[in-house]
Amino acid sequence: MAMGQHCSILQIVGFQNSGKTTLMEKLISRANQQGLKAASIKHHGHGGVPKVDSSTKDSTRHFKAGAIISSVSGDGVLQLSARVDDLNLNEIIDLYKIFPIDVIFIEGYKREYYPKVVLIRDETDLQLLSSLSNIKCVISHIKLDKDINNNYQVFQLNEEESYIDFLIEELVKTSDRKFV
Amino acid sequence: MAMGQHCSILQIVGFQNSGKTTLMEKLISRANQQGLKAASIKHHGHGGVPKVDSSTKDSTRHFKAGAIISSVSGDGVLQLSARVDDLNLNEIIDLYKIFPIDVIFIEGYKREYYPKVVLIRDETDLQLLSSLSNIKCVISHIKLDKDINNNYQVFQLNEEESYIDFLIEELVKTSDRKFV
Repeated sequence: MAMGQHCSILQIVGFQNSGKTTLMEKLISRANQQGLKAASIKHHGHGGVPKVDSSTKDSTRHFKAGAIISSVSGDGVLQLSARVDDLNLNEIIDLYKIFPIDVIFIEGYKREYYPKVVLIRDETDLQLLSSLSNIKCVISHIKLDKDINNNYQVFQLNEEESYIDFLIEELVKTSDRKFV
Repeated sequence: MAMGQHCSILQIVGFQNSGKTTLMEKLISRANQQGLKAASIKHHGHGGVPKVDSSTKDSTRHFKAGAIISSVSGDGVLQLSARVDDLNLNEIIDLYKIFPIDVIFIEGYKREYYPKVVLIRDETDLQLLSSLSNIKCVISHIKLDKDINNNYQVFQLNEEESYIDFLIEELVKTSDRKFV
């Protein structure tokens, strides 16, 4: 699933409550077990501005005073806040280039062109299949028609082991790094 | 105060409760008024790992699952968490290069070599003057000896207008951008 970037990229898309975050967690966790260094990007949608906790209150003070970016680091963790009105997904990916990562899992950003897993909750979600590009597999809460099964690699939601294996195998295959 | 980077850099250093964050706020705010796009970097010291709020809970789930970096963006703000065991100050500065900023204010990181403001609370803090490099000015809570006044540009803590003017003027002078 490498796309010529410095690392492999996989998008997890689907409507609300289709299980995107849970799948992200499982993939990140499994990637780690495989020795793949994983990163994630999420779009907050219409949830408003993501806030930082009071434990980062000094950097919050910098941010509130008008800093475009502010960050605080300690004990091996960096927390960064940035005003990014013009930052698109590819620019966020660029920002990640400084880190030694093998794969980026992206939650959301349906309209982007990276390889995708599409989560289907019910029949009304099937519209996604015709409107989205670069679908690697479909994970469905419901049984799907033969037609769809013929056109896509389809898994049922409860076939977790199969689809996690399938996806991680694809990522390992296309990663630049060699794995044991 | 440009150092050959893509933007000017100024460090604010001093011991705890010497007023670093307050000065950072004032400089950031004033830089903004001058049309300088400001950024900030802070070291959390021994305060433990900076935490994110529950409003970023999905990206926190990614991070807890083992992501090296996770970010969430929405309504023009990006919140990023990264495991940065090996990231030093210059690498954080590199990370900022993607953003259109004119100046980076750094709170802490005393031992670094960027131009510095040193905050002095009391006589015991004077050791900083002999141990630190590249001191642009000293801002002191107490009256200082003639010797120190001869060797450094010294301001008293209550001379806020003077030192903010002095520092912003230096930053504007050395910035690559032209200001009206």
